[in-house]
Amino acid sequence: MQSPQRLRGIFTPNIVPLDAKGEIDEVELRRYTSWLIERGVHGLYPNGSTGEFTRFTPEERRRIVAIMCDEAAGRVPILAGAAEANVRETLAACAYYHELGVRAVAIVSPFYYKLSPASVYAYFHEIGRNSPIDVTLYNIPMFASPIDVPTIQRLSEECERIVAIKDSSGDIPNMIRMIQAVRPNRPDFSFLTGWDAALMPMLVVGCDGGTNATSGIVPEITRKLYDLTIAGRLDEAREVQYGLVKLFDAMLYSADFPEGFRAALSLRGFRPGVGRQPLSSDQTVELAHVRDTLQCLLADAGFTDEPVGGCPPRRAGVDAGAVDQIVQGVLAELKRRGMA
Amino acid sequence: MQSPQRLRGIFTPNIVPLDAKGEIDEVELRRYTSWLIERGVHGLYPNGSTGEFTRFTPEERRRIVAIMCDEAAGRVPILAGAAEANVRETLAACAYYHELGVRAVAIVSPFYYKLSPASVYAYFHEIGRNSPIDVTLYNIPMFASPIDVPTIQRLSEECERIVAIKDSSGDIPNMIRMIQAVRPNRPDFSFLTGWDAALMPMLVVGCDGGTNATSGIVPEITRKLYDLTIAGRLDEAREVQYGLVKLFDAMLYSADFPEGFRAALSLRGFRPGVGRQPLSSDQTVELAHVRDTLQCLLADAGFTDEPVGGCPPRRAGVDAGAVDQIVQGVLAELKRRGMA
Amino acid sequence: MQSPQRLRGIFTPNIVPLDAKGEIDEVELRRYTSWLIERGVHGLYPNGSTGEFTRFTPEERRRIVAIMCDEAAGRVPILAGAAEANVRETLAACAYYHELGVRAVAIVSPFYYKLSPASVYAYFHEIGRNSPIDVTLYNIPMFASPIDVPTIQRLSEECERIVAIKDSSGDIPNMIRMIQAVRPNRPDFSFLTGWDAALMPMLVVGCDGGTNATSGIVPEITRKLYDLTIAGRLDEAREVQYGLVKLFDAMLYSADFPEGFRAALSLRGFRPGVGRQPLSSDQTVELAHVRDTLQCLLADAGFTDEPVGGCPPRRAGVDAGAVDQIVQGVLAELKRRGMA
Amino acid sequence: MQSPQRLRGIFTPNIVPLDAKGEIDEVELRRYTSWLIERGVHGLYPNGSTGEFTRFTPEERRRIVAIMCDEAAGRVPILAGAAEANVRETLAACAYYHELGVRAVAIVSPFYYKLSPASVYAYFHEIGRNSPIDVTLYNIPMFASPIDVPTIQRLSEECERIVAIKDSSGDIPNMIRMIQAVRPNRPDFSFLTGWDAALMPMLVVGCDGGTNATSGIVPEITRKLYDLTIAGRLDEAREVQYGLVKLFDAMLYSADFPEGFRAALSLRGFRPGVGRQPLSSDQTVELAHVRDTLQCLLADAGFTDEPVGGCPPRRAGVDAGAVDQIVQGVLAELKRRGMA
Repeated sequence: MQSPQRLRGIFTPNIVPLDAKGEIDEVELRRYTSWLIERGVHGLYPNGSTGEFTRFTPEERRRIVAIMCDEAAGRVPILAGAAEANVRETLAACAYYHELGVRAVAIVSPFYYKLSPASVYAYFHEIGRNSPIDVTLYNIPMFASPIDVPTIQRLSEECERIVAIKDSSGDIPNMIRMIQAVRPNRPDFSFLTGWDAALMPMLVVGCDGGTNATSGIVPEITRKLYDLTIAGRLDEAREVQYGLVKLFDAMLYSADFPEGFRAALSLRGFRPGVGRQPLSSDQTVELAHVRDTLQCLLADAGFTDEPVGGCPPRRAGVDAGAVDQIVQGVLAELKRRGMA
Repeated sequence: MQSPQRLRGIFTPNIVPLDAKGEIDEVELRRYTSWLIERGVHGLYPNGSTGEFTRFTPEERRRIVAIMCDEAAGRVPILAGAAEANVRETLAACAYYHELGVRAVAIVSPFYYKLSPASVYAYFHEIGRNSPIDVTLYNIPMFASPIDVPTIQRLSEECERIVAIKDSSGDIPNMIRMIQAVRPNRPDFSFLTGWDAALMPMLVVGCDGGTNATSGIVPEITRKLYDLTIAGRLDEAREVQYGLVKLFDAMLYSADFPEGFRAALSLRGFRPGVGRQPLSSDQTVELAHVRDTLQCLLADAGFTDEPVGGCPPRRAGVDAGAVDQIVQGVLAELKRRGMA
Repeated sequence: MQSPQRLRGIFTPNIVPLDAKGEIDEVELRRYTSWLIERGVHGLYPNGSTGEFTRFTPEERRRIVAIMCDEAAGRVPILAGAAEANVRETLAACAYYHELGVRAVAIVSPFYYKLSPASVYAYFHEIGRNSPIDVTLYNIPMFASPIDVPTIQRLSEECERIVAIKDSSGDIPNMIRMIQAVRPNRPDFSFLTGWDAALMPMLVVGCDGGTNATSGIVPEITRKLYDLTIAGRLDEAREVQYGLVKLFDAMLYSADFPEGFRAALSLRGFRPGVGRQPLSSDQTVELAHVRDTLQCLLADAGFTDEPVGGCPPRRAGVDAGAVDQIVQGVLAELKRRGMA
Repeated sequence: MQSPQRLRGIFTPNIVPLDAKGEIDEVELRRYTSWLIERGVHGLYPNGSTGEFTRFTPEERRRIVAIMCDEAAGRVPILAGAAEANVRETLAACAYYHELGVRAVAIVSPFYYKLSPASVYAYFHEIGRNSPIDVTLYNIPMFASPIDVPTIQRLSEECERIVAIKDSSGDIPNMIRMIQAVRPNRPDFSFLTGWDAALMPMLVVGCDGGTNATSGIVPEITRKLYDLTIAGRLDEAREVQYGLVKLFDAMLYSADFPEGFRAALSLRGFRPGVGRQPLSSDQTVELAHVRDTLQCLLADAGFTDEPVGGCPPRRAGVDAGAVDQIVQGVLAELKRRGMA
């Protein structure tokens, strides 16, 4: 077999903008898709956890990918989340996405039920053996049945179609174990991290890239972090990673996922609309505060204005240095690459 | 408001038989439905976790309930699992089940994402305010976002349509806390346990019944346990509960849920078919052993013959006494009630 | 072997009063010991988790038991916590407590390190084979390595000296499994629950008693709950259990264990002193509020006056009924038994 | 304040050799201490988790440190584990270790009870305010109450005596959060990781060193990993880290901690003796197999001979490359440094 190119770089798991009726806002989704591509992400990843795949119908999931494929028009590869109710439905989705021309599908481990490694293996083996398109395993143990190292190794050896794993655990020693178990026999196999707060050290230990929710909000920063790390400019990368942890934490822990990311997206000039998971009135109030906090962080990074009323003075020494360096670094890099 | 009758008794969460093509086996599902009713369960609970609701399409979920409603023909009330991808889809399912004439729907707490109590509240509040039919909350913290006591209390006070909670945690102190928080203001609110291994003590502390997977396999025993406990015949009930723990554990922990129950169902004369979650070849071999173990337990209880090759001698004192008493007790009770 | 009496009833795990210098307050400890005995607890359990055994030196642990033995003077049996740094030290403590005349020792499973079942077995086997005195296993999985059912069964079969298990998990199905596994071969083996919120259902499924921290604060209520349940007066017992859950929760969850119990003890007329685990100033302020809440609950139950400033009006229906019944029930029972 | 030198480098948490009677083997402990120093570890860390501090008496803990201080004779700094039963006892130990001339003490967060952040704060604040010697916080959330980021920040600001944290979680994003919160105001504060499988990426994100159990077995490798990483030779460092993960996992997960490390120590020519936690006969047999596996890994790395009977052929590609490179790298480095 001629070894194809490994999946590499930053694949953005995108929020799906909704209109006033709660339907997919195609115009905004297209605008967002192109905006991401223009800001340098290496690929797109619809129907991920950030994309709230579980809250759409099977038909809607297909439509999201179709719109984004059409808009991307081959400018970047697309990794399409394809998990459906069971293997048969999932394979049907794989066939559909294959026809659309996506680069690969990503399939989350079975969720709701907590399955044993043997069942997780059997599930992916069945898919891997029958998919018409390359498959990325999606390991997110906080939400779905974990895919352990022996299972990954066995699947990588038995199923040529399985070409990558996207791991959202943030567990670096486990990433090392996965790479050790798979890479010798499958040099084409790619390892992607979904945990933005560990992106730089993940790349340092051998990961090929990430599917990072922050890249949907500040693609400039996530992309820069990737570039600096790959270039071995570790001191600069470390500073950017520190700033990204702050942004990531603020979006992730401030509200039920992915509401913080939705709020931040609105600060970048998009209309993400109201999510499908209802919010209590208390939550709506809180989210306004979260939005202000995020606006201050994004204003710090030069991406938006401060909110009305301004931002609290930053603790001397704690934030200022790191974030300033990010801003300068990002701006310099953007200038260098002709993007600013 | 005139307080309607509380939901009471044993509601059976049923396995859905599949045919050789993996499709719903309507004939077998009808036969199973009637068999359960004839063996004395108080109600039926399609589209529960035992019913693998996540592994069917939205259309299939509707069809399962439609078949069972038609077959039950009003002989027992039906509690239909109605959770769909989002609130709108769920409410549409509620409307459909309402037209079918089910007694109430059961809606599992949002899963995949781990939601905060505020989000869980907002989700059920939206449903409770708009459902055309009575709603049972479904709390299963090992699989879905937990519904905590303040959330239950608030929902019970604000949404008349929410009439019950089905709790599968098996946590008895927490059940006491729920009852304490809700019953004073909502005497019509029902508390059902989904944890068979705690059915008797749950009833003793104030539960109204259960949605118990064992009742889909040995409805005679689960029903008997309910009757003995309600009648205050605690010494007999304790013996039956001990036996049920053994059966429950054997079906629950021997294989990934609900494979053990599927295997046991085949021992009661049904053809449940092969489940939709694939099994590895190792798992298939193991499941044959599990089936033998279950057959021995069911043979002990008088429900089937011993497997070819016989059963291992039971450890003196450990099993014999308890199980024999169950058999005798069950047979005596069945005779008394004209069922054997 | 002639089967001795099983350990039965309520064994109180006591707080150790400290004086102004942080030393054991012998006078108060003696007064407290006698007060508990006079209020009807069946036994005493020094050096338990409530007794903060880890915060005393080995010498202090011995002194606590010596004082209480001397004060009890044989009026009730004593179960002495005897866990020390390793097996040798633990066996030396067992020998010392044996000479003091305690009924049995209780030994918590190894903690800090999370040990496998094999290591837990080896640890208790070594102790069980060499202890000069009866041993109670102490299973508290939230704090120490769990003792699983096969381990309990094996130890009960191999070590005659091991005569009981105290389980603080509150997991009733697991208690059933333990009893099923052990009782047939060891009818003298006793099962005690340390989880007050499940005392009544634990007794209903076959437990012999409890080591309950509430019995150190409201021995009248815990004892009454035991008596009503054993007598089969379930409706009354249920009401008392509901009230006890409220008290237990208030003391357990209001502050880091066992500070809530220490605060409550001061409301019963003792001077428990300041604990050895330091409190922040915020915590000290909070604890004052906790004390008021507890005082209201204890005042409700007739054990103390309301705090200065009074208690908040109870929510109609929620608390009043249940707690009033407790008060009446407890008072009536106390009168009947000549204690009030 | 004149900022003293941060703690930096690899501090070895050592196993304590025991003699045939189970007593501290002073001769072997001295020989081991000097051996570690000669192999290049930057410091020693007695009474850590690897050192089984909980299984010794207070007197024995003091003696271990005294012997090692005497043997080290100032060649490397010593970080002495000083946690005792309560604050008073701990401060007495601090005073004793101070007199011995150790560089600092390390104090594990309170264990057994799971304390809130407020209590953890209060505990360390009391110690930090009263210790005569520099204090390292020891965070090991799998065994003890977690020390969260706000607590670390507050303690670092209020207590000059608290100069470092040793974190054994292996959670790199959390390490970033800790450094972000503390370093701006306390440039002298040191961050050490106790999780060997993440040592290289931890150093890359800003850690100052580690307290790594592998350095007690293969000090040559752990030290080399530190040196390569600090020198920015990431490709070489990555290979060494991969090999260290394999060794670490083999020692950590093969038996209850720290038995795998004890077994490995015997392969380096020491007599660690039999641990104080008893082993079942099954465990003793298993440990012999573990010893063979470890011997093969250590033989691969050039530190010992293969076991009698030889080692299994390594899976092509999986182990050979990585481990060979380690061997070569370590040997080359050792030669360069005059150690081989």
